[in-house]
Amino acid sequence: MRIGLIGYGGVGKAFTKLIVDKSSMLKEEGLNIEIVYIINSKGGVYNPKGIGYNKLLAFSNGGKSIIEDYDENKKITPDFMLERKDIDLMIELTSTNKETGEPALSYILKALENKIHVVTGNKGPIIQRYKKLEKMAGENGVHLGIGCTCGGALPSVNGGVIEMAGSEISSIEGVFNGTTNYILKEMEDTGCTYDIALKKAKDFGISEANPSFDVEGWDTAFKLLILTNVIMKEEKNLSDIKVEGITNLTPYDIENALKEGKRYKLIGRTSRVEKELNMLVKLEKVDKEHPFYNVDGKNKAVRYISDTLGELTLIGGASGTTAATASILRDIIYISRVARV
Amino acid sequence: MRIGLIGYGGVGKAFTKLIVDKSSMLKEEGLNIEIVYIINSKGGVYNPKGIGYNKLLAFSNGGKSIIEDYDENKKITPDFMLERKDIDLMIELTSTNKETGEPALSYILKALENKIHVVTGNKGPIIQRYKKLEKMAGENGVHLGIGCTCGGALPSVNGGVIEMAGSEISSIEGVFNGTTNYILKEMEDTGCTYDIALKKAKDFGISEANPSFDVEGWDTAFKLLILTNVIMKEEKNLSDIKVEGITNLTPYDIENALKEGKRYKLIGRTSRVEKELNMLVKLEKVDKEHPFYNVDGKNKAVRYISDTLGELTLIGGASGTTAATASILRDIIYISRVARV
Repeated sequence: MRIGLIGYGGVGKAFTKLIVDKSSMLKEEGLNIEIVYIINSKGGVYNPKGIGYNKLLAFSNGGKSIIEDYDENKKITPDFMLERKDIDLMIELTSTNKETGEPALSYILKALENKIHVVTGNKGPIIQRYKKLEKMAGENGVHLGIGCTCGGALPSVNGGVIEMAGSEISSIEGVFNGTTNYILKEMEDTGCTYDIALKKAKDFGISEANPSFDVEGWDTAFKLLILTNVIMKEEKNLSDIKVEGITNLTPYDIENALKEGKRYKLIGRTSRVEKELNMLVKLEKVDKEHPFYNVDGKNKAVRYISDTLGELTLIGGASGTTAATASILRDIIYISRVARV
Repeated sequence: MRIGLIGYGGVGKAFTKLIVDKSSMLKEEGLNIEIVYIINSKGGVYNPKGIGYNKLLAFSNGGKSIIEDYDENKKITPDFMLERKDIDLMIELTSTNKETGEPALSYILKALENKIHVVTGNKGPIIQRYKKLEKMAGENGVHLGIGCTCGGALPSVNGGVIEMAGSEISSIEGVFNGTTNYILKEMEDTGCTYDIALKKAKDFGISEANPSFDVEGWDTAFKLLILTNVIMKEEKNLSDIKVEGITNLTPYDIENALKEGKRYKLIGRTSRVEKELNMLVKLEKVDKEHPFYNVDGKNKAVRYISDTLGELTLIGGASGTTAATASILRDIIYISRVARV
């Protein structure tokens, strides 16, 4: 399988390392991965015969910016790659724009049009145009892998699309955000205020410098939106979700919940009531009988409720770059099995 | 997709009903199922153009034994079907023989040899000869769906094969048996003895007339064996598993566990320690932080631990004929997607 990788940050670099580490497993799987392009915003590497693993590793580990390495005097860009079309699959890991989905959206569309499979970890284009992308993939007989956009290692998309196949899903709910999980656990364990727990999350690098995206519930909302549109085949927008964060939670609230034997979780939920779809992100108290009771720290979870296959809860999804990368590889293996690339 | 169904008990009958109930969903999926054969031990129905849904429903609901309905004067048997080879997929639901896997094993082998996909709910052949069957499927470019053999609606096989793809799994553990789950919960809730709880399970039709298979841990062991051989690519036998049941548990044990905030679960576990594989079925006490704490009654669960994708716990899997049937349909949909039948 000939792969072009665009976007070469932490996950991209970890991917090139992962396929070296996993080379014997990939061989057993019958999957021969050749990375033909690595492209970032500064330039790219291209070797039509496959970029050597040693060179890959040097790039991955050395932290050097990518150099151009192609005999013609051309800049290696995504457009260059998508014009040559000499790959089977594009890994798209460029930076996210959730308003427009660009430039990833255009790259993905162009790849699919050219019968190139795509695996992406980018929420932007999926939020903006999933239905169009999926249609384009179907018309061109290729696949679009999006597992990494919704919880990384937690197979939340597959959980709905593959594991609940043939059933009608009436509810999707989950604990999708690691930062809020960390903050809530810290408040429970130490009795501290929200601000102190947030500071700790920042100090430990768990929270981003600007945490509002996580703590105000938007990250959860985006993941819920993707799962809803993909699994329930809807075309909802962010404005269809009632979003609430965790910023107003007090130690007093936490203490009262613990007295009741309950824990707060930031839950995203889409439920079908009659013909209406109800979508919200909300702090809820759950007791020890609830499947999300133990979902804290780095764990995430999703629960589906269906007609014929009953309920299914998936809990897990290690955090971090390795896990995100491994979820990209999971999608690639799936595509190689189904499309026999 | 032309389907031949052999074994026409509860699940087989429910299947013919399910595909009528799900006809609009199947159409959306692009999956056109025609049932061409229905065969049981007494005879069979065959219509090369597809057995009409009304006739199917009459058979399913009417409880009539299957009649022969073919213009030539031949008995409709699995061998007859496998000689004509005019199907894409065989659903194999004949009765289980765990010692030999027969006659299902021969039917499945013959189908795969003839490039016919197979979906089975039958543990016997999978326990006996999975590796050979899988190899045969691979060589003939067809698929073998076995989701129904390990927990029905709980996607335990897919959980390992698809959702952990690309990672190395060091541990498989699960709560796989409904009857023991019911008995343990009854003992916890009422403080009754094992014998009283077992009687209740029999009275409610939860336990089989001969419950030893469940309560002595063998059903759990069989499922663990299948998951281990399929997901870890091993060739283990039942004799490799140290099996312990729940028959010696006393109300005193239960009471003590509850005092510690713990619950007993019958857990099957395969774990890799260095190069050794350790397999056991054992009653264990779990506390409320354990992912299996809430797995009781009809629920089942499985947890995988891996190198790159972390931990994944799947909880769910409604019991009963509908759920088992829906898990057969899930495998068929998967095959139709990957093989484009």
